[in-house]
Amino acid sequence: MAEITKTAEWRALENHFKDIKNSHMRDLFMSDPERFDKNHLQLNDFLFDFSKNRITDETKKLLIALAEKAGLQDWRGRLFSGEKINFTENRAALHIALRNRANKPIKVDGEDVMPLVNHELSKIRKLSEEIRSGVWKGFSGKKIKSIVNIGIGGSDLGPSMVCDALRPFGSEDISPYFVSNVDAADLSQTLEKCDPETTLFIVASKTFSTQETMTNAFSARDWFIKKAKNNEFIKNHFVAISSNEKAAEDFGIHAENVFVLWDWVGGRYSMWSSIGLSIAIFIGMENFEQILEGGYEADNHFISAPLEENIPVMMALIGIWYINFFNFSTFAVLPYDHCLAKLPSYLQQADMESNGKFIGRDNKKVCQKTGPILWGEAGTNGQHAFYQLLHQGTQITPCDFIMPLHSNYKLADDKNDHHKILQANFIAQTQSLMIGKSISDVENEMKNEIMDNPSLKNLVSHRIFEGNRPSNSILFESLSPKSLGRLIAIYEHKIFTQGIIWNINSFDQWGVEYGKQIAKLVLPKLESKQHSETFDSSTNNLINYINNNT
Amino acid sequence: MAEITKTAEWRALENHFKDIKNSHMRDLFMSDPERFDKNHLQLNDFLFDFSKNRITDETKKLLIALAEKAGLQDWRGRLFSGEKINFTENRAALHIALRNRANKPIKVDGEDVMPLVNHELSKIRKLSEEIRSGVWKGFSGKKIKSIVNIGIGGSDLGPSMVCDALRPFGSEDISPYFVSNVDAADLSQTLEKCDPETTLFIVASKTFSTQETMTNAFSARDWFIKKAKNNEFIKNHFVAISSNEKAAEDFGIHAENVFVLWDWVGGRYSMWSSIGLSIAIFIGMENFEQILEGGYEADNHFISAPLEENIPVMMALIGIWYINFFNFSTFAVLPYDHCLAKLPSYLQQADMESNGKFIGRDNKKVCQKTGPILWGEAGTNGQHAFYQLLHQGTQITPCDFIMPLHSNYKLADDKNDHHKILQANFIAQTQSLMIGKSISDVENEMKNEIMDNPSLKNLVSHRIFEGNRPSNSILFESLSPKSLGRLIAIYEHKIFTQGIIWNINSFDQWGVEYGKQIAKLVLPKLESKQHSETFDSSTNNLINYINNNT
Repeated sequence: MAEITKTAEWRALENHFKDIKNSHMRDLFMSDPERFDKNHLQLNDFLFDFSKNRITDETKKLLIALAEKAGLQDWRGRLFSGEKINFTENRAALHIALRNRANKPIKVDGEDVMPLVNHELSKIRKLSEEIRSGVWKGFSGKKIKSIVNIGIGGSDLGPSMVCDALRPFGSEDISPYFVSNVDAADLSQTLEKCDPETTLFIVASKTFSTQETMTNAFSARDWFIKKAKNNEFIKNHFVAISSNEKAAEDFGIHAENVFVLWDWVGGRYSMWSSIGLSIAIFIGMENFEQILEGGYEADNHFISAPLEENIPVMMALIGIWYINFFNFSTFAVLPYDHCLAKLPSYLQQADMESNGKFIGRDNKKVCQKTGPILWGEAGTNGQHAFYQLLHQGTQITPCDFIMPLHSNYKLADDKNDHHKILQANFIAQTQSLMIGKSISDVENEMKNEIMDNPSLKNLVSHRIFEGNRPSNSILFESLSPKSLGRLIAIYEHKIFTQGIIWNINSFDQWGVEYGKQIAKLVLPKLESKQHSETFDSSTNNLINYINNNT
Repeated sequence: MAEITKTAEWRALENHFKDIKNSHMRDLFMSDPERFDKNHLQLNDFLFDFSKNRITDETKKLLIALAEKAGLQDWRGRLFSGEKINFTENRAALHIALRNRANKPIKVDGEDVMPLVNHELSKIRKLSEEIRSGVWKGFSGKKIKSIVNIGIGGSDLGPSMVCDALRPFGSEDISPYFVSNVDAADLSQTLEKCDPETTLFIVASKTFSTQETMTNAFSARDWFIKKAKNNEFIKNHFVAISSNEKAAEDFGIHAENVFVLWDWVGGRYSMWSSIGLSIAIFIGMENFEQILEGGYEADNHFISAPLEENIPVMMALIGIWYINFFNFSTFAVLPYDHCLAKLPSYLQQADMESNGKFIGRDNKKVCQKTGPILWGEAGTNGQHAFYQLLHQGTQITPCDFIMPLHSNYKLADDKNDHHKILQANFIAQTQSLMIGKSISDVENEMKNEIMDNPSLKNLVSHRIFEGNRPSNSILFESLSPKSLGRLIAIYEHKIFTQGIIWNINSFDQWGVEYGKQIAKLVLPKLESKQHSETFDSSTNNLINYINNNT
């Protein structure tokens, strides 16, 4: 394919942008009473309102044409068919197989992967039920009370985000913990809350060699053995999620407690796999399967809905519109549900590790911006922190506002209206970002103050809001295993769609390798307190400063 | 003052930028063996290495000239003297008075504020000591075990970040909790861990009317009364931080347990004030005063050091260089200490609420970009999430890497080297971001693979790193109350310096008001389930969708 920026479809959008860039959404809403009707989509109880964006019918048409030109429909099929679209690693990207609830065969290298998937699911079911029922016992005969998942990146963010989100569905007898950082503080603070007799560690590392994960796993094992005294007991308290069965067994883990990961599941797409073991233990297998059902619902929608009615496709195209034509740099995810507080961090990896790339599938440097910087915090907290910049900053950040209609929590018989206040704030933010506040509105508001003190008229400008700041509103019934699975899978497909249009491989991550290589050169210098002269003067001096002061 | 972008100093930087933009830091380091020596500053054990930036001696000279042109020295004096530099609210911005350990008089409207500050400090000392020693008792005669700070934004982020950061200094008998979000999940999950007989609530709201805070406070009181039965006991379990003593008393709080906030302390600069009460209770008054000492150390440095030797000034100017000349949009804070995991969120408010503004002190729209989007996560976690984009994305994000030389935690007699691995990663990231990896390096590395499979040569480009991606390295002895106070105050002064150069008022926050106003219009429609027709079609439909489905 020609470079996307050289296509007629891209140029048409560039031209169209000139018409749109000065339109105000306020006027677009005024001139078309059906704007909401034309610019929202629904997938069961999932409502996606994208009418508060700087788009017209023409914008949508041109963006869809761009997606078609990029071959999105074709690529979508290749993703689902198990083709090795992760070509730089010669791998398929088959997270959709993990939630392929119809069990329709999907082949990689001629072999149907579904029996493998189903086998792992049955293993997850068995272990999670044994732990929850108390059939599985610690070395002193006690039931497991704490699950410590040791993993980092894709082996941490998914299960940790999901266990927070679905806490109301979790067992009251089992506490899930997540240790990721190699900083000793992370594991130390977790172990303070655990008892070696009742703790199960899940060591999650595809290669069983990830530096942070193995360092934490070895320290956790030391802590455990100090109490248990006998290495034989390791198998009662440690299980592994890894492709490296041998290394896990050497660690002391029983072969049947090593859960497989395949090379066609990327870390950041792995919460649906055995990486979700901690989730299944905490919320139970039926609920874990509901997460898969939610993902499957999104998959069916993505693969079959026409592009203009396709939620992840429209999310992706609106993003492209802002990143590549408006030249906006970032994108905020703002969940109005406290239990989704970790969603921005989770999506940060999903999005930025997938699409933060400058080399295209044609092995050349891309000619346009790719993935944005994704950030955010739970609402209403963010309102009292950074929304100042969202409203009155010199940069514009498109936002996804996300909220369930019903809360899983009630307080004081609900008389204090927590959830309605939350909802009112959600709506008020999307509205005020869009509509702004004019000079005459402010003058009117300050009339009495100015009457008393005419010099205050000078300050009117500080209270003006330009508006025209775009957002999507995403609503769904309640935060349940199924709705969460659907939400995550929708974002996955959005990210995929953007990667296709940018012509990049969203499934590799060469960018994380180089730092690891250099760390291996630096570590011996710190361990031996060796004077460093081999790097640049900054790096040498930092190493020597550390060595001289520790 | 003339618009800063129209000054000769700004134009000189624009011209200089043309010379610099294509220089690679790799070459700058190669050509000058003293680059580190010339580009680092030290304040006691605080090391600020800014040599891995795209600057030369000339850049520094021109940036300093810009700061002088903007009148930074003068403004710095006005900040410290108590002048009402927050002119849109007609207030001083006197957080420095809160940590003015020399107790030198600082006057606002002719009155020395230091006696007020000292009086509040003595109240904080008294209450914190009573709680810690057990002199203060709950209604049933028991010692307080849980502190629940109810506040949002500036009344939450500071104490919550600090209590996490300084956990090793905290009391083992007292657990601090922070409830901010109006979502019932936040308070519910906290109350599950508390016992009404041993819990003290701190209600922190300047006006005692903040919607989120008061909603949570009323629900907390309901929960408490359900057990305590008697309204008289409220005064044993609730204290307030507020300027509205009357409202706090009406709530049931004893007048002597209302801690004052003055209008010259902005929320995002208030952790040094009585807003720090939860900190003082958790880590003790001596440690709280050490935080103030650290802030004071930074204040003395900022007010007295020549601009070119001034750490916050140089941090600010480097930021200006990237934001306004390189046109970078964001800035990442990457603490390599797990206990500083909340620092990015804290600084998000400090920075974005201060400088996310488009109206200048001349009441006109500014002509240049102002505050960046600040984001980040603790290292090494971020490395496995978004560093892909930092290394190989199409956008460049300047980063602050922050790390103590010593950890406060040890595991398994330290044999597994957690902290050295953390440090090696810190250094490796700053080095690899700077130096990059060339095509020949990659070809060399892949030599054997390519020999076996010549088509792999096409994939070389995917493993190239352009480098030239800037970062600051910040090191200090250990994460202690004093070093944390110093770190935070340095960022405060950095933010102030940038605000001066951009000619904005960093101390107001009109941008957060409008959303609150609209929320008050929306809430009644949700409470009464009234059909909405008064807004735009998106807002109306969202309100009606919620009303029809709840």
